[in-house]
Amino acid sequence: MINPFFKNEGPFIISDILHAISLDITDLIYDKLIVDIKDLLTSEENDITFFHSKKYKDAAKNTKASFCITTENLKNYLPKNCKPLIVNNVLVATSIVTSKFYPSSINDNFDNTVRNINETKFKDKVKFGKNVLIGKNVSIGSNCLIGHNTIIEHNVSIGDNCSIGCNVIIRGSLIKNNVNVLDNCVLGKHGFGFFPIKDKNLRYPHIGIVIIEDNCEIGCGCTIDRGSMSNTVIGKNTFLDNQIHIAHNVKIGNNSIIAGQVGIAGSSILGNNVRIGGQAGISGHLKIGNNVEIAGGSGVIKDIPENSKVMGYPAKNIKDFLKEKR
Amino acid sequence: MINPFFKNEGPFIISDILHAISLDITDLIYDKLIVDIKDLLTSEENDITFFHSKKYKDAAKNTKASFCITTENLKNYLPKNCKPLIVNNVLVATSIVTSKFYPSSINDNFDNTVRNINETKFKDKVKFGKNVLIGKNVSIGSNCLIGHNTIIEHNVSIGDNCSIGCNVIIRGSLIKNNVNVLDNCVLGKHGFGFFPIKDKNLRYPHIGIVIIEDNCEIGCGCTIDRGSMSNTVIGKNTFLDNQIHIAHNVKIGNNSIIAGQVGIAGSSILGNNVRIGGQAGISGHLKIGNNVEIAGGSGVIKDIPENSKVMGYPAKNIKDFLKEKR
Amino acid sequence: MINPFFKNEGPFIISDILHAISLDITDLIYDKLIVDIKDLLTSEENDITFFHSKKYKDAAKNTKASFCITTENLKNYLPKNCKPLIVNNVLVATSIVTSKFYPSSINDNFDNTVRNINETKFKDKVKFGKNVLIGKNVSIGSNCLIGHNTIIEHNVSIGDNCSIGCNVIIRGSLIKNNVNVLDNCVLGKHGFGFFPIKDKNLRYPHIGIVIIEDNCEIGCGCTIDRGSMSNTVIGKNTFLDNQIHIAHNVKIGNNSIIAGQVGIAGSSILGNNVRIGGQAGISGHLKIGNNVEIAGGSGVIKDIPENSKVMGYPAKNIKDFLKEKR
Repeated sequence: MINPFFKNEGPFIISDILHAISLDITDLIYDKLIVDIKDLLTSEENDITFFHSKKYKDAAKNTKASFCITTENLKNYLPKNCKPLIVNNVLVATSIVTSKFYPSSINDNFDNTVRNINETKFKDKVKFGKNVLIGKNVSIGSNCLIGHNTIIEHNVSIGDNCSIGCNVIIRGSLIKNNVNVLDNCVLGKHGFGFFPIKDKNLRYPHIGIVIIEDNCEIGCGCTIDRGSMSNTVIGKNTFLDNQIHIAHNVKIGNNSIIAGQVGIAGSSILGNNVRIGGQAGISGHLKIGNNVEIAGGSGVIKDIPENSKVMGYPAKNIKDFLKEKR
Repeated sequence: MINPFFKNEGPFIISDILHAISLDITDLIYDKLIVDIKDLLTSEENDITFFHSKKYKDAAKNTKASFCITTENLKNYLPKNCKPLIVNNVLVATSIVTSKFYPSSINDNFDNTVRNINETKFKDKVKFGKNVLIGKNVSIGSNCLIGHNTIIEHNVSIGDNCSIGCNVIIRGSLIKNNVNVLDNCVLGKHGFGFFPIKDKNLRYPHIGIVIIEDNCEIGCGCTIDRGSMSNTVIGKNTFLDNQIHIAHNVKIGNNSIIAGQVGIAGSSILGNNVRIGGQAGISGHLKIGNNVEIAGGSGVIKDIPENSKVMGYPAKNIKDFLKEKR
Repeated sequence: MINPFFKNEGPFIISDILHAISLDITDLIYDKLIVDIKDLLTSEENDITFFHSKKYKDAAKNTKASFCITTENLKNYLPKNCKPLIVNNVLVATSIVTSKFYPSSINDNFDNTVRNINETKFKDKVKFGKNVLIGKNVSIGSNCLIGHNTIIEHNVSIGDNCSIGCNVIIRGSLIKNNVNVLDNCVLGKHGFGFFPIKDKNLRYPHIGIVIIEDNCEIGCGCTIDRGSMSNTVIGKNTFLDNQIHIAHNVKIGNNSIIAGQVGIAGSSILGNNVRIGGQAGISGHLKIGNNVEIAGGSGVIKDIPENSKVMGYPAKNIKDFLKEKR
């Protein structure tokens, strides 16, 4: 898939890419053209990929990429067609190469392609408020409303029957049908991902997007960050209350209910029919099963199996928690 | 009282109302005109009401409504003048009927009645910033300031000596005198109330309003949702810090102090002189007495008697909490 | 230093100041001109100062101020050159006198000096979006971007290579170089400080500012309040995620990482290389040492020595916390 939001500045010859990550490797074709950076599974012959953890070894064995940023320990999993590029820190090197291909994905500077909606083709198609700004190549379905002072940045796609509130900022996002996004939301900002370096952190590029499936409601003042390499997804018919923060790469299932001021850290994956009480927090990289209920104020720091009800910090079975507290 | 914010699309003949909730009742006058839907206490002869819990049986006995949405178990509490309409789920049926009378209360689409304040009668009366938008039938007292990009939606009333910040959105609200509402607040959005239904939730109509009494301050980025059938109220001289979320139907007393990032869930009622530390959360449908102090970060999940100091999650007497934690 | 943000309405003759705090003292020169109110250390001969706690006795002994608001118990620490003004509540009296000198520091009314950036000298120097408003005496360095609907109030200073997002409000702030402030932030609002008084609280003037040092990133929807008498400071290369609240007088060190929805209460001081997980809260007036790690969701209510890792509420050593919870 061509990334609709961030321009690929490639192709680059492989020697330029090696130079960017300070590698000097002699036994390769220096003028080979590299078209894109992708994960192990989706890479094609003219792509570069990366491999930083043994748990992806099966994908590594079958990658079609010509080059792979990896470590001494992992390189032997790669197939013959894929030349290993050995670095100290795979993610830092991957970040640098991704930034080379997609420099606009690093910072979220304001979109200077926007025009007042009055000057666009949506003038007669959409019901809109004052001072609505629309970027280039935006698509908006039928029967939509867009409130005052709202900004829809370039390449954003909005389906049919959507109501977008006032003071909303949407970038890097794909909004399906019948979705309500209430006032003051910011969707699609880059995630809070970077490599801490004294004096000047290295920002991680975020080339993933935000996908809001059909029939969702996003409450006032929510922030939903876009993904780094994968997407941030809100499943069908899931409702979010006010002031919720959803970090990059999070995936929330269908028919879920999330109360006010909840925060979900990066890369956690939630099932369907999940219910989360107000102010609860979920740490990063967790799996929350289907039909899980998380009591308000809880702090979840490990995976929760499906059909569980949990409470407390760290969150545990709700009956155990309440018994202890009696 | 005529609801100033949501147009009553009635009257409807009772057979139309029955049709909406899929009821077919033979022994009643099908062309009886019903003017409004109200609670048991305030209903008049031409109204329809609802009765879903035994704890309202005293109000039920004396209701003046001609029809009442209720259950088989509860119907015998109703007086003779009031015809029971038996349904499986009283609140769902009530939601459907309320939506029929007040369809505009379901979604919070942007207010398309607004004009730039320069084009209104407030032009010479109010001190205002750039791009201030004012809806129809707004009333603003003397000596008020309204900051840049702020939107005051139709029928909102603001008293004397109020200072409204920038990027504020006010709808469905009654602001009394000497009130400061700081930047980026959203007042009067519909509450987070709906009936979860697979594929497409049923939104609950919110026909209550937000009332901010005299001398209050509402910090930056707060959200105060309007009520469903009753109002959300902030008492006199109560100060809210930044990023606070007050859910629908909450009532906060006078002279209270609420620190940053606190969240109060729906329908909880707080007394006077209540002090709440930062990030504390209060569950829904609770009673918090006068002079209660709730430590920052606490999670309150049961009623708190007056003059108590509580801490922890679940919040308990502060001395007990600190002793256990030593 | 002359305060760039709040106009000093002085000088006042001392008898006017005494009148404001209802003092009648006979043995002093009533027409002595007082130029400013400052703390014990920085006061000069024509200033008034205040002294409310024994822990400042060393500073009190050497103050150069001619007058000092203090108590009967503390007055003997003052040098001969400094006339004690005895009051019941030093902070209330100080607040009243500060308000007399700096009345504009009490409320945050919108800045009516702003003009559209198109009408300013920044028109050709800065890359800017639609509806950007710039107050009087603003300074902006080279190579900066300012997003749509953003308001930079009077006297704010922004360094080189800064990217300010959309819907941002900046007042009372000094932004250094290479700083990113993302969408919907409010920087420099007065702190949540006042004296609770039945019927009408007494607002504390906030004459401190917000300083954001080089290379910082401030996430979407953050609020950073300005200080009361001192400043609120975010150290170099510190990154804040979304929806964070930083209260007045807080000082955060360099190279720190603060995850989403964290709240830091007034006057707490954090060292360098501090890492704070999402939704953690830090009470007011605490000291957090260098290299401290605070787990997400924790509630810190006492000082944390450097190099510690803490978790829980109240936050304690992370190993102890996890052992107890096993």
